Amino acid sequence: MRARDLAEDFPVVHLGTDALTAVLTMGRERRPGIIVCEDDGTPHTVLPGSQVLRFLVPRYVQDDPTLARVYDELTSDETWRKLARKTVHDLLPEPQDRDDLPVVEPDATTVEVAALMARLHSPVVAVVEEGRVLGAITVSRLFEVMFPDDGVPDDLRGGEDAPR
Amino acid sequence: MRARDLAEDFPVVHLGTDALTAVLTMGRERRPGIIVCEDDGTPHTVLPGSQVLRFLVPRYVQDDPTLARVYDELTSDETWRKLARKTVHDLLPEPQDRDDLPVVEPDATTVEVAALMARLHSPVVAVVEEGRVLGAITVSRLFEVMFPDDGVPDDLRGGEDAPR
Repeated sequence: MRARDLAEDFPVVHLGTDALTAVLTMGRERRPGIIVCEDDGTPHTVLPGSQVLRFLVPRYVQDDPTLARVYDELTSDETWRKLARKTVHDLLPEPQDRDDLPVVEPDATTVEVAALMARLHSPVVAVVEEGRVLGAITVSRLFEVMFPDDGVPDDLRGGEDAPR
Repeated sequence: MRARDLAEDFPVVHLGTDALTAVLTMGRERRPGIIVCEDDGTPHTVLPGSQVLRFLVPRYVQDDPTLARVYDELTSDETWRKLARKTVHDLLPEPQDRDDLPVVEPDATTVEVAALMARLHSPVVAVVEEGRVLGAITVSRLFEVMFPDDGVPDDLRGGEDAPR
Protein backbone atom coordinates (compact mmCIF):
# COMPACT_ATOMS: atom_id res chain seq x y z
CA MET A 1 0.00 0.00 0.00
CA ARG A 2 1.24 3.47 -0.87
CA ALA A 3 0.93 6.84 0.82
CA ARG A 4 -1.70 8.02 -1.69
CA ASP A 5 -3.97 5.14 -0.62
CA LEU A 6 -3.50 5.92 3.07
CA ALA A 7 -4.04 9.69 2.90
CA GLU A 8 -7.16 11.07 4.53
CA ASP A 9 -8.60 14.56 4.60
CA PHE A 10 -6.84 16.72 7.13
CA PRO A 11 -7.37 20.39 7.89
CA VAL A 12 -4.97 22.79 6.17
CA VAL A 13 -4.34 26.46 6.97
CA HIS A 14 -1.84 28.96 5.60
CA LEU A 15 0.87 30.96 7.36
CA GLY A 16 -1.31 34.05 7.02
CA THR A 17 -4.51 32.43 8.36
CA ASP A 18 -5.61 33.96 11.65
CA ALA A 19 -4.92 31.81 14.69
CA LEU A 20 -8.57 31.79 15.74
CA THR A 21 -9.57 29.98 12.54
CA ALA A 22 -6.87 27.37 13.20
CA VAL A 23 -8.12 26.77 16.75
CA LEU A 24 -11.80 26.62 15.75
CA THR A 25 -10.90 24.13 13.01
CA MET A 26 -8.95 21.81 15.33
CA GLY A 27 -11.84 21.88 17.81
CA ARG A 28 -14.57 21.34 15.22
CA GLU A 29 -12.76 18.56 13.35
CA ARG A 30 -11.33 17.03 16.55
CA ARG A 31 -7.75 17.07 15.28
CA PRO A 32 -4.67 17.33 17.50
CA GLY A 33 -2.93 19.56 14.96
CA ILE A 34 -3.23 21.20 11.59
CA ILE A 35 -1.14 21.27 8.40
CA VAL A 36 0.35 24.69 7.67
CA CYS A 37 1.09 25.67 4.06
CA GLU A 38 3.00 28.59 2.58
CA ASP A 39 0.73 31.13 0.99
CA ASP A 40 1.44 29.46 -2.43
CA GLY A 41 0.06 26.15 -1.11
CA THR A 42 3.30 24.23 -0.56
CA PRO A 43 3.47 22.58 2.86
CA HIS A 44 5.40 24.41 5.56
CA THR A 45 4.96 22.43 8.76
CA VAL A 46 2.40 20.96 11.17
CA LEU A 47 1.12 23.15 14.02
CA PRO A 48 0.34 20.99 17.06
CA GLY A 49 -2.53 22.10 19.29
CA SER A 50 -0.22 22.11 22.31
CA GLN A 51 1.84 24.82 20.61
CA VAL A 52 -1.24 27.07 20.52
CA LEU A 53 -1.65 26.50 24.25
CA ARG A 54 2.00 27.50 24.79
CA PHE A 55 1.12 30.77 23.09
CA LEU A 56 -2.06 31.32 25.13
CA VAL A 57 -0.92 30.26 28.59
CA PRO A 58 1.83 32.49 30.00
CA ARG A 59 4.99 30.64 30.93
CA TYR A 60 4.68 31.48 34.64
CA VAL A 61 1.20 29.94 34.65
CA GLN A 62 2.44 26.83 32.85
CA ASP A 63 5.08 26.38 35.52
CA ASP A 64 2.91 26.95 38.58
CA PRO A 65 -0.13 24.68 39.09
CA THR A 66 -1.39 26.97 41.89
CA LEU A 67 -1.48 29.93 39.53
CA ALA A 68 -3.12 27.83 36.81
CA ARG A 69 -5.97 27.10 39.23
CA VAL A 70 -6.83 30.79 39.68
CA TYR A 71 -5.84 32.19 36.26
CA ASP A 72 -9.00 32.85 34.27
CA GLU A 73 -7.85 34.89 31.29
CA LEU A 74 -8.27 31.99 28.87
CA THR A 75 -12.03 32.17 28.90
CA SER A 76 -12.24 35.92 28.41
CA ASP A 77 -13.33 37.72 25.27
CA GLU A 78 -9.81 39.10 25.11
CA THR A 79 -8.44 35.64 24.32
CA TRP A 80 -10.70 35.36 21.26
CA ARG A 81 -9.46 38.76 20.11
CA LYS A 82 -5.85 37.84 20.75
CA LEU A 83 -6.25 34.77 18.55
CA ALA A 84 -8.08 36.72 15.85
CA ARG A 85 -5.27 39.32 15.70
CA LYS A 86 -2.46 36.77 15.39
CA THR A 87 -1.59 34.64 12.38
CA VAL A 88 -0.64 30.98 12.38
CA HIS A 89 2.87 32.16 11.54
CA ASP A 90 3.01 34.06 14.85
CA LEU A 91 2.28 30.86 16.77
CA LEU A 92 4.95 28.64 15.22
CA PRO A 93 8.10 27.87 17.16
CA GLU A 94 11.50 28.77 15.72
CA PRO A 95 11.96 28.11 11.97
CA GLN A 96 11.85 24.45 11.02
CA ASP A 97 14.76 22.58 9.55
CA ARG A 98 13.48 21.84 6.04
CA ASP A 99 14.80 18.27 6.33
CA ASP A 100 12.40 17.75 9.16
CA LEU A 101 9.17 18.36 7.30
CA PRO A 102 6.66 15.60 7.96
CA VAL A 103 5.95 15.18 4.25
CA VAL A 104 5.98 12.16 1.90
CA GLU A 105 5.35 11.69 -1.81
CA PRO A 106 2.21 9.83 -2.94
CA ASP A 107 4.13 6.66 -3.85
CA ALA A 108 6.00 6.38 -0.54
CA THR A 109 5.70 2.91 0.99
CA THR A 110 4.24 2.19 4.43
CA VAL A 111 7.79 1.63 5.69
CA GLU A 112 8.88 5.06 4.42
CA VAL A 113 5.92 6.63 6.20
CA ALA A 114 6.71 4.67 9.38
CA ALA A 115 10.40 5.61 9.23
CA LEU A 116 9.60 9.31 8.90
CA MET A 117 7.09 9.28 11.79
CA ALA A 118 9.62 7.41 13.92
CA ARG A 119 12.47 9.81 13.17
CA LEU A 120 10.39 12.97 13.72
CA HIS A 121 8.26 11.61 16.63
CA SER A 122 5.31 12.77 14.53
CA PRO A 123 1.79 11.31 14.76
CA VAL A 124 0.93 12.65 11.30
CA VAL A 125 2.63 13.18 7.91
CA ALA A 126 1.29 15.11 4.94
CA VAL A 127 1.10 13.48 1.50
CA VAL A 128 2.21 15.98 -1.11
CA GLU A 129 2.15 15.78 -4.91
CA GLU A 130 3.96 18.50 -6.83
CA GLY A 131 3.64 20.98 -3.99
CA ARG A 132 -0.03 20.26 -3.35
CA VAL A 133 -1.28 18.57 -0.16
CA LEU A 134 -3.38 15.49 -1.03
CA GLY A 135 -4.16 14.67 2.61
CA ALA A 136 -2.43 13.28 5.65
CA ILE A 137 -1.61 9.92 7.21
CA THR A 138 -2.01 9.47 10.97
CA VAL A 139 -0.07 6.92 12.99
CA SER A 140 -3.33 5.16 13.95
CA ARG A 141 -4.30 4.81 10.27
CA LEU A 142 -0.87 3.33 9.60
CA PHE A 143 -1.31 0.80 12.43
CA GLU A 144 -4.80 -0.04 11.17
CA VAL A 145 -3.38 -0.90 7.74
CA MET A 146 -0.14 -2.56 8.85
CA PHE A 147 -1.68 -4.53 11.70
CA PRO A 148 -5.31 -5.30 10.88
CA ASP A 149 -7.27 -7.26 13.50
CA ASP A 150 -7.86 -10.07 11.02
CA GLY A 151 -4.16 -10.34 10.19
CA VAL A 152 -3.06 -11.70 13.57
CA PRO A 153 -1.27 -15.02 12.95
CA ASP A 154 -3.35 -17.93 14.28
CA ASP A 155 -0.77 -19.00 16.84
CA LEU A 156 -0.86 -15.53 18.46
CA ARG A 157 -4.62 -15.65 19.00
CA GLY A 158 -6.54 -16.90 22.03
CA GLY A 159 -5.66 -17.05 25.70
CA GLU A 160 -6.30 -14.43 28.33
CA ASP A 161 -3.45 -12.12 27.33
CA ALA A 162 -3.99 -12.44 23.61
CA PRO A 163 -4.75 -9.40 21.47
CA ARG A 164 -8.48 -8.92 21.13
CA MET B 1 -15.99 23.25 33.22
CA ARG B 2 -13.85 20.74 35.07
CA ALA B 3 -11.61 17.90 33.93
CA ARG B 4 -14.18 15.26 34.95
CA ASP B 5 -16.69 16.80 32.50
CA LEU B 6 -14.15 16.87 29.67
CA ALA B 7 -12.82 13.34 30.07
CA GLU B 8 -13.60 10.85 27.31
CA ASP B 9 -12.94 7.15 27.03
CA PHE B 10 -9.38 6.46 26.03
CA PRO B 11 -7.63 3.14 25.62
CA VAL B 12 -5.58 1.99 28.61
CA VAL B 13 -2.96 -0.76 28.75
CA HIS B 14 -0.62 -1.91 31.49
CA LEU B 15 3.17 -2.10 31.60
CA GLY B 16 2.93 -5.86 31.23
CA THR B 17 0.49 -5.84 28.30
CA ASP B 18 2.03 -7.23 25.12
CA ALA B 19 2.99 -4.62 22.55
CA LEU B 20 0.86 -6.22 19.84
CA THR B 21 -2.31 -5.57 21.86
CA ALA B 22 -1.29 -1.91 22.27
CA VAL B 23 -0.73 -1.52 18.51
CA LEU B 24 -3.95 -3.30 17.54
CA THR B 25 -5.87 -1.08 19.99
CA MET B 26 -4.42 2.17 18.63
CA GLY B 27 -5.27 1.07 15.09
CA ARG B 28 -8.78 -0.14 15.89
CA GLU B 29 -9.73 2.88 18.01
CA ARG B 30 -7.84 5.33 15.77
CA ARG B 31 -5.87 6.84 18.63
CA PRO B 32 -2.41 8.42 18.29
CA GLY B 33 -1.32 6.98 21.62
CA ILE B 34 -2.42 4.95 24.60
CA ILE B 35 -2.44 5.47 28.38
CA VAL B 36 -0.07 3.12 30.20
CA CYS B 37 -0.83 2.13 33.81
CA GLU B 38 1.21 0.32 36.43
CA ASP B 39 0.01 -3.20 37.03
CA ASP B 40 -1.95 -1.89 40.08
CA GLY B 41 -3.91 0.50 37.83
CA THR B 42 -2.21 3.80 38.68
CA PRO B 43 -1.19 5.77 35.59
CA HIS B 44 2.42 5.48 34.49
CA THR B 45 2.71 7.44 31.23
CA VAL B 46 1.35 7.81 27.71
CA LEU B 47 2.87 5.68 24.93
CA PRO B 48 2.76 7.60 21.62
CA GLY B 49 2.34 5.56 18.44
CA SER B 50 5.49 7.09 17.00
CA GLN B 51 7.45 5.50 19.86
CA VAL B 52 6.26 2.07 18.72
CA LEU B 53 7.53 2.87 15.22
CA ARG B 54 10.92 3.84 16.70
CA PHE B 55 11.02 0.35 18.18
CA LEU B 56 10.00 -1.38 14.93
CA VAL B 57 12.02 0.57 12.37
CA PRO B 58 15.78 0.16 12.83
CA ARG B 59 17.64 3.42 13.34
CA TYR B 60 19.65 3.04 10.11
CA VAL B 61 16.38 2.70 8.18
CA GLN B 62 14.89 5.75 9.91
CA ASP B 63 17.91 7.78 8.86
CA ASP B 64 18.12 6.65 5.22
CA PRO B 65 15.08 7.21 2.98
CA THR B 66 16.64 5.01 0.27
CA LEU B 67 16.84 2.08 2.67
CA ALA B 68 13.31 2.75 3.90
CA ARG B 69 12.09 2.33 0.32
CA VAL B 70 13.45 -1.21 0.01
CA TYR B 71 13.16 -2.41 3.62
CA ASP B 72 10.21 -4.78 3.87
CA GLU B 73 10.54 -6.42 7.28
CA LEU B 74 7.65 -4.45 8.75
CA THR B 75 5.03 -6.43 6.89
CA SER B 76 6.45 -9.83 7.73
CA ASP B 77 4.98 -12.34 10.15
CA GLU B 78 8.12 -11.87 12.20
CA THR B 79 7.05 -8.32 13.07
CA TRP B 80 3.78 -9.59 14.54
CA ARG B 81 5.73 -12.08 16.62
CA LYS B 82 8.23 -9.46 17.73
CA LEU B 83 5.36 -7.29 18.99
CA ALA B 84 3.66 -10.24 20.68
CA ARG B 85 6.86 -11.15 22.55
CA LYS B 86 7.52 -7.63 23.86
CA THR B 87 5.64 -5.78 26.58
CA VAL B 88 4.56 -2.16 26.54
CA HIS B 89 7.27 -1.59 29.16
CA ASP B 90 9.91 -2.73 26.64
CA LEU B 91 8.79 -0.03 24.19
CA LEU B 92 8.90 2.95 26.53
CA PRO B 93 11.74 5.42 26.30
CA GLU B 94 13.92 6.06 29.36
CA PRO B 95 12.11 6.36 32.69
CA GLN B 96 9.82 9.38 32.94
CA ASP B 97 10.31 12.16 35.40
CA ARG B 98 7.33 11.68 37.69
CA ASP B 99 6.69 15.44 37.61
CA ASP B 100 6.05 15.13 33.91
CA LEU B 101 3.10 12.79 34.01
CA PRO B 102 0.27 14.06 31.81
CA VAL B 103 -2.27 13.57 34.60
CA VAL B 104 -4.85 15.87 36.22
CA GLU B 105 -7.38 15.48 39.02
CA PRO B 106 -11.09 15.40 38.17
CA ASP B 107 -11.68 18.93 39.48
CA ALA B 108 -8.83 20.54 37.52
CA THR B 109 -9.98 23.62 35.59
CA THR B 110 -9.67 24.01 31.81
CA VAL B 111 -6.75 26.39 32.42
CA GLU B 112 -4.95 23.78 34.51
CA VAL B 113 -5.44 21.23 31.73
CA ALA B 114 -4.25 23.75 29.12
CA ALA B 115 -1.20 24.70 31.19
CA LEU B 116 -0.16 21.06 31.58
CA MET B 117 -0.56 20.27 27.86
CA ALA B 118 1.42 23.39 27.02
CA ARG B 119 4.27 22.59 29.40
CA LEU B 120 4.55 18.92 28.34
CA HIS B 121 3.79 19.47 24.61
CA SER B 122 1.18 16.76 25.12
CA PRO B 123 -1.96 16.36 22.99
CA VAL B 124 -3.65 14.32 25.72
CA VAL B 125 -3.83 14.20 29.53
CA ALA B 126 -5.34 11.48 31.69
CA VAL B 127 -7.96 12.34 34.32
CA VAL B 128 -7.22 10.34 37.46
CA GLU B 129 -9.22 9.97 40.67
CA GLU B 130 -7.54 8.22 43.60
CA GLY B 131 -5.20 6.33 41.33
CA ARG B 132 -7.90 5.26 38.87
CA VAL B 133 -8.04 6.55 35.27
CA LEU B 134 -11.48 8.07 34.57
CA GLY B 135 -10.66 8.92 30.96
CA ALA B 136 -8.57 11.38 29.00
CA ILE B 137 -8.83 14.89 27.59
CA THR B 138 -7.48 15.60 24.12
CA VAL B 139 -6.30 19.02 22.99
CA SER B 140 -9.04 19.11 20.32
CA ARG B 141 -11.73 18.43 22.93
CA LEU B 142 -10.28 21.27 25.01
CA PHE B 143 -10.44 23.65 22.02
CA GLU B 144 -13.97 22.52 21.26
CA VAL B 145 -15.06 23.47 24.77
CA MET B 146 -12.95 26.62 25.20
CA PHE B 147 -13.62 27.98 21.72
CA PRO B 148 -17.02 26.77 20.53
CA ASP B 149 -18.09 27.89 17.06
CA ASP B 150 -21.09 29.70 18.51
CA GLY B 151 -18.96 31.59 21.01
CA VAL B 152 -17.15 33.77 18.45
CA PRO B 153 -17.76 37.42 19.42
CA ASP B 154 -20.00 39.12 16.83
CA ASP B 155 -17.39 41.64 15.76
CA LEU B 156 -14.99 38.82 14.81
CA ARG B 157 -17.51 37.19 12.49
CA GLY B 158 -18.06 37.78 8.77
CA GLY B 159 -15.68 38.88 6.03
CA GLU B 160 -13.61 36.67 3.81
CA ASP B 161 -10.89 35.96 6.36
CA ALA B 162 -13.24 35.41 9.26
CA PRO B 163 -13.33 32.09 11.10
CA ARG B 164 -15.97 29.85 9.61
